[in-house]
Amino acid sequence: MTTDHFLADCRARLAFDLLSNTWNAVLLWALREGPRRPGELRERIGGISPKVLTETLRRLEFNGLVVRQSYDESPPRVEYGLTALGETLLTPIDAFGMWAFEHGDEVMAARDTNADASRPQARGA
Amino acid sequence: MTTDHFLADCRARLAFDLLSNTWNAVLLWALREGPRRPGELRERIGGISPKVLTETLRRLEFNGLVVRQSYDESPPRVEYGLTALGETLLTPIDAFGMWAFEHGDEVMAARDTNADASRPQARGA
Repeated sequence: MTTDHFLADCRARLAFDLLSNTWNAVLLWALREGPRRPGELRERIGGISPKVLTETLRRLEFNGLVVRQSYDESPPRVEYGLTALGETLLTPIDAFGMWAFEHGDEVMAARDTNADASRPQARGA
Repeated sequence: MTTDHFLADCRARLAFDLLSNTWNAVLLWALREGPRRPGELRERIGGISPKVLTETLRRLEFNGLVVRQSYDESPPRVEYGLTALGETLLTPIDAFGMWAFEHGDEVMAARDTNADASRPQARGA
């Protein structure tokens, strides 16, 4: 077999597609300590609109990673939490977060250098 | 400090943005064993157009993850390889690939179930 399984396997692509929306990973991470109400999630995350939050939660629910719980209280309470499957994603997400802390600055530096190099003035220097 | 560092830190978001294009991870993975020519990469990966391959390689180069080497041969040879920084990304990418092999089927199953549940007929049953 000369096929590269990682590249050919549609499950691998599916996994990366899950991360293709940055909010997915951010939301899963924000739920790592237990279920949260939408309002709490908005506070924790920052910079996410109510609309995008709702869309992201629906998408994660559709993929079996998050579960919605509604409680018959007054006023009614709704919480979102990780499923067992969603919890299994925390490890690879953490690996990625760790990488960002260790190497994020290097990526930033490379971007700065390359952005400078593509300016006409810098090219002539 | 009540701020959630992982969520607030722009380096973490930067890392996930790098994966926000699935091809980035696929390309880095395809280079894990050493530098490759663009034609070899297209063969290994499958389903990537020459245009998208070029765009992806440029983006990875811009972010300091991949380096372009040209050799003064006849015909001229061009290869792309991982930088030291690019190599550091293989570990978290692998963690993600492993997750996909272990849990990809569960995500697929959840999608099927949820897609069925959203059909009017299934709802009535």
